[in-house]
Amino acid sequence: MSKSVKIIGTGSYIPGNVTKNESFSSHRFFNIDGSKIKESNTDIIEKFKAITGIEERKYFDNNLVTSDMAFFAANEAIKDAKVNPEEIDYIVVAHNYGDVKYNSIQSDMVPSLASRVKHLLQIENPNCVAYDILFGCPGWLEGIIQMNAYIKAGMAKTCLVIGAEGLSRVIDQHDRDSMIYSDGAGAAVIQLTESTGGIIAHSTETHTKEEAHFIHFDKSYEKLENSARHYIKMYGRKVYNFALKNVPVAMKSCLDKSGVSIDQIKKIIIHQANEKMDEAICERFFKLCNREVPNNIMPMSIGELGNSSVATIPTLLDLILKLKMKGHKIEKGDHVMFASVGAGMNINAVVYQF
Amino acid sequence: MSKSVKIIGTGSYIPGNVTKNESFSSHRFFNIDGSKIKESNTDIIEKFKAITGIEERKYFDNNLVTSDMAFFAANEAIKDAKVNPEEIDYIVVAHNYGDVKYNSIQSDMVPSLASRVKHLLQIENPNCVAYDILFGCPGWLEGIIQMNAYIKAGMAKTCLVIGAEGLSRVIDQHDRDSMIYSDGAGAAVIQLTESTGGIIAHSTETHTKEEAHFIHFDKSYEKLENSARHYIKMYGRKVYNFALKNVPVAMKSCLDKSGVSIDQIKKIIIHQANEKMDEAICERFFKLCNREVPNNIMPMSIGELGNSSVATIPTLLDLILKLKMKGHKIEKGDHVMFASVGAGMNINAVVYQF
Repeated sequence: MSKSVKIIGTGSYIPGNVTKNESFSSHRFFNIDGSKIKESNTDIIEKFKAITGIEERKYFDNNLVTSDMAFFAANEAIKDAKVNPEEIDYIVVAHNYGDVKYNSIQSDMVPSLASRVKHLLQIENPNCVAYDILFGCPGWLEGIIQMNAYIKAGMAKTCLVIGAEGLSRVIDQHDRDSMIYSDGAGAAVIQLTESTGGIIAHSTETHTKEEAHFIHFDKSYEKLENSARHYIKMYGRKVYNFALKNVPVAMKSCLDKSGVSIDQIKKIIIHQANEKMDEAICERFFKLCNREVPNNIMPMSIGELGNSSVATIPTLLDLILKLKMKGHKIEKGDHVMFASVGAGMNINAVVYQF
Repeated sequence: MSKSVKIIGTGSYIPGNVTKNESFSSHRFFNIDGSKIKESNTDIIEKFKAITGIEERKYFDNNLVTSDMAFFAANEAIKDAKVNPEEIDYIVVAHNYGDVKYNSIQSDMVPSLASRVKHLLQIENPNCVAYDILFGCPGWLEGIIQMNAYIKAGMAKTCLVIGAEGLSRVIDQHDRDSMIYSDGAGAAVIQLTESTGGIIAHSTETHTKEEAHFIHFDKSYEKLENSARHYIKMYGRKVYNFALKNVPVAMKSCLDKSGVSIDQIKKIIIHQANEKMDEAICERFFKLCNREVPNNIMPMSIGELGNSSVATIPTLLDLILKLKMKGHKIEKGDHVMFASVGAGMNINAVVYQF
């Protein structure tokens, strides 16, 4: 039998503090130019829900930091994979803001979040290398692609890849987009196995010429606040157009590389950025393949979980594999396509067989 | 001829603002417990210089951020390598604090510093993937190890690896250790070449059980300041003992893997952390190899440049290759050993033939 790099266990951490759209109804929302948005908050929230599909999002507890969530997800993935933690060769944590303590505005990444997770897992083996990758929302999937390379280069056999983000600590309450973001962590253990399938093909792109700062870090839209504090900021329309133009093409190029037929793809597991955008990407991808979009091909968790950046894909995967996504399952032999897009601007895709 | 992964160009950025030890003479230095250090500043500075070897350090201009320094070094490395920037497959930036603007305390890493550098280099090719790695001071060397894996896995041919850090923005002026840190950037282009040598062997370790927080982010030693602001902090004695115990062993293990004899090693290019510590590591390494330390084996730039974290090794390498380190040169065919240690706690080493 041939060898392949396969996901042998998954885990996730979904924070417990449910925050419904209604909880934004008393916020004062401003435009980027500092002018007050004229629509009522009821209208703003209604429109927001129609576009993004988000009804609620989960925030993590005040006493936690992002690396704690990463640890919870990692711990579950290790148990699910039934591996001895001391046999893990690499721990990779994808994030974009480090650990930001509640009531702090500073990002703390020294030591790396991966080192913190390794410490919390009480792994002693010094040959288990722990590092962080910053790659926007596609960071977790890029971590998987990186570990695939390491395994192929003979540098590793078993790797733990985690995506964790606490966006509730970096959102501007005066920005409508603040309603998009949420907190969470997802993790997977991947391993060199004696079987077919696994990671069949992957694609990655970084677009920076015009696009580098489409998602960035900037001041509040409430100009009177006059604070130097920066928050996550997005030129939403530009991100939407960029994603719609480039993600389907990258997915198609990855599919072509894989040699897998579009008709074999059982699920599209896409970064939970925005429901309408994800649907449009999916539609355009199938159009590029000369197909109609099959029923029930794209499981969506964004309605309840919001956009937790690097955490959305591994969390969604964990929910599907543990039969917690109603109407969705993945069976042995099934082909799926993973795809993500986000700050950088980065895009990636993976064709994978379970 | 066989194929090998080789450094084909280097560059560095050494900031222009020279800060001599004397400029710390009016600082009020405190111990970790908040008590005032009893020695005079003259004595503190004298002792500091005797241990670390540092006489001056360079700080970057107020209008710059770390990614600007990364860009300057990268630009020089690309010119030195005489590659077409559009042919670069990967841009990796190692850092630990992101971009911290002057008079800000927030780290900005969205988009990643690698995306910013790619934007500044005006590279259009979307297949040039840009990401950041957080791995303490050994981050640049780990970037080289990662790109070596990618090249071996057939994912890349030409890679740009940059180490950039602006530590002057995260130091506590009431902490003696603040005198250690400096700013700067170094870069190298590596490529798959039709020649022998290049990266022959590498080792990496992450120690987190007791060691994870030996270098961390914490409040000022001046407790009356009563600010929530965090700074780079180090348990110096613990770091020293850790490094002395583990780095020589890791270097020896890397040398053994390489099959290269200790007598072939022409230079030890080590992270510029602390002169006495580096000398002690070097001594112990040669002792493990049953050798006396050869004359002039370890070029040191720390006296004038201080400890610029991820930037020290690529900057030092660039200075040697451009004949700017008096008494040191590297010729074609020479074997060198790179070694680093830092936050995480991470250690790495590479045996390389030019």
